[in-house]
Amino acid sequence: MGGNALKADAAGLRRFMASALAKVGVPERDAATTAEILVDADLRGIESHGLLNFYDYYYKKVRDGDIQGRPRIRVSRGSPTTAVVDGDNGLGLVVGHRAMEEALSMAEESGSGWVSVCGSNHCGAGAYYVLMAARRNMLGFHVSTGGSTVAGPGGTGRLVGNNVIAFAAPAKKHDPFVLDMAPTMAIANKIRRFGWEGKPIPPGFAVDRKGEPITDPEEYFRQEGAILPLGSSPLYGIHKGFGLILMVDILAGVLSGDGGSTLRKKGAETHAFGALRIDAFPSGADFPGLMEEMIGRIHGAPTVEGSGPMRYPGERMGRVYRERLRDGIPLNEAMIADLRKLSAEQNLPLEDVFIR
Amino acid sequence: MGGNALKADAAGLRRFMASALAKVGVPERDAATTAEILVDADLRGIESHGLLNFYDYYYKKVRDGDIQGRPRIRVSRGSPTTAVVDGDNGLGLVVGHRAMEEALSMAEESGSGWVSVCGSNHCGAGAYYVLMAARRNMLGFHVSTGGSTVAGPGGTGRLVGNNVIAFAAPAKKHDPFVLDMAPTMAIANKIRRFGWEGKPIPPGFAVDRKGEPITDPEEYFRQEGAILPLGSSPLYGIHKGFGLILMVDILAGVLSGDGGSTLRKKGAETHAFGALRIDAFPSGADFPGLMEEMIGRIHGAPTVEGSGPMRYPGERMGRVYRERLRDGIPLNEAMIADLRKLSAEQNLPLEDVFIR
Repeated sequence: MGGNALKADAAGLRRFMASALAKVGVPERDAATTAEILVDADLRGIESHGLLNFYDYYYKKVRDGDIQGRPRIRVSRGSPTTAVVDGDNGLGLVVGHRAMEEALSMAEESGSGWVSVCGSNHCGAGAYYVLMAARRNMLGFHVSTGGSTVAGPGGTGRLVGNNVIAFAAPAKKHDPFVLDMAPTMAIANKIRRFGWEGKPIPPGFAVDRKGEPITDPEEYFRQEGAILPLGSSPLYGIHKGFGLILMVDILAGVLSGDGGSTLRKKGAETHAFGALRIDAFPSGADFPGLMEEMIGRIHGAPTVEGSGPMRYPGERMGRVYRERLRDGIPLNEAMIADLRKLSAEQNLPLEDVFIR
Repeated sequence: MGGNALKADAAGLRRFMASALAKVGVPERDAATTAEILVDADLRGIESHGLLNFYDYYYKKVRDGDIQGRPRIRVSRGSPTTAVVDGDNGLGLVVGHRAMEEALSMAEESGSGWVSVCGSNHCGAGAYYVLMAARRNMLGFHVSTGGSTVAGPGGTGRLVGNNVIAFAAPAKKHDPFVLDMAPTMAIANKIRRFGWEGKPIPPGFAVDRKGEPITDPEEYFRQEGAILPLGSSPLYGIHKGFGLILMVDILAGVLSGDGGSTLRKKGAETHAFGALRIDAFPSGADFPGLMEEMIGRIHGAPTVEGSGPMRYPGERMGRVYRERLRDGIPLNEAMIADLRKLSAEQNLPLEDVFIR
């Protein structure tokens, strides 16, 4: 991406996306929340979960009635620290944001809060929700079911979800610790990228209906191959990745009454959100200093010659965020095409979005 | 192990271990708890965390004063659902059991409970603690720091712990779901086993001080090599294993005021325990049925020819538990030697332990 490539201004992009959603009936506040979470992903360098999904997934599904623009989200508490949210097939980002707010509010009052969510849709990057907690001096947890494209150990077809596990902790002067991962070998976009780059899928990533490795990215999509859980083989720990995937299914899908990625009773996505207030632990005052020391130990660890210092999860995200807030969000051709299409379709100006 | 090999009766073994601990000053109730948790690991087929560690680790450390037989465990609540436990350098199993009881009791009252623990020692198999929750119709969480023998991505030496993540959920007529894993390529005993079996360490498991692969198990111990995080390489997801290891360090070490496996301020182990009451979620009544359905889906999944049906985490553990409770716990030479040594040292009879 050269210095003259087209970039987007974060604030302008947010306004543009929110306006587009408002045009298809999303209430102003929910449209703003959705735009905020998606642009945040682009700012942090999580391009697979931002603008790239806006036109074809979020906007179009609301426009076409596949996702409810004005859902009646139902929040039911069962105890001072536990609740279930039914998203009424609303935008996953709106439902997720509401659910995490509920978890934070319970943690504020009682130390911890846990919310399991059914009837939702793709809720974007998990990093956003767990960072909501970190900004309020809490530990944030998030899990979500993903598309059921993953095989179990020894399996020959798609069985479980490409699920997500996310966790964040504040780190004083450093950028927050943010883990945001799928306990699988790859998400679909990574398989696509191998194709774009003309590379084969590495061994151990995906299998066909006979359980044989698939190496051709096109074959993966043509045959509806299955991704493998993290670990990839019995010797290398595939049962660990599989176990983590199922843990997500239990916390998000089974606990919320839906069933998760193997069952999909209500045909929609499920999530869970959790928060632990750090100062609700009597040792909480030591937390910031110990996080700094831990990070210092990681930065100071000896590494292989020429590889530079070791980094912790969330560090790159934080650096990219500051750069892109200042310099703009780099746009690729697919993003630009989507923006122009939307601009024409809803007669929305792009002047405030593009910067050079 | 043939049909005539020496086995141990679970109840007899429990009494023997508890008596041995009592002889070195552990209060009766704590001795019983310790024996209960260790024998439970052997019953479930987690031999690496049971009797095998009894003589050389738990018993000897108490006898020699390295672990306090009569610790003053301090429990400090900071909110209705959060607490810190300082184990006062007591037996990890006693400290862990006390901490999990605290988490369960908070969850009973308020829906959820979270306890972070410092000043402890090795607390045995995580499966035990999370199953305490599952038996009370709760979801159980446990994390623990382990020996600091693991490298970070690109690292050339030992930096972080061989940490543990455990999770359990009840499953109605089925054995509970139990995940009990290290987010690393191996625990030390697995490296030893490669040596006993005359096999090389597979590529991607361990590195030397230059970051080069170590394949000889003896070299691993001689050079104090480092295990790699789950994922093993950048392409295969080493950053995911590393992130999970650090998440454990934050929940157990940083939150409890100790610092975790990179810092080890108090020189001891740290843990965390969590519980979520299923019936504190308004959808909780659907949980048992949905767990059964999920397991049915796993059992029915097509698998590679000749490999048999797919299993879920905890299934083998449950089957082995019932077999060993009925037929006895198989003993290997090291276990038998330890038992005889202890019997002689403390003049404790072995009649009730051995069965054939």
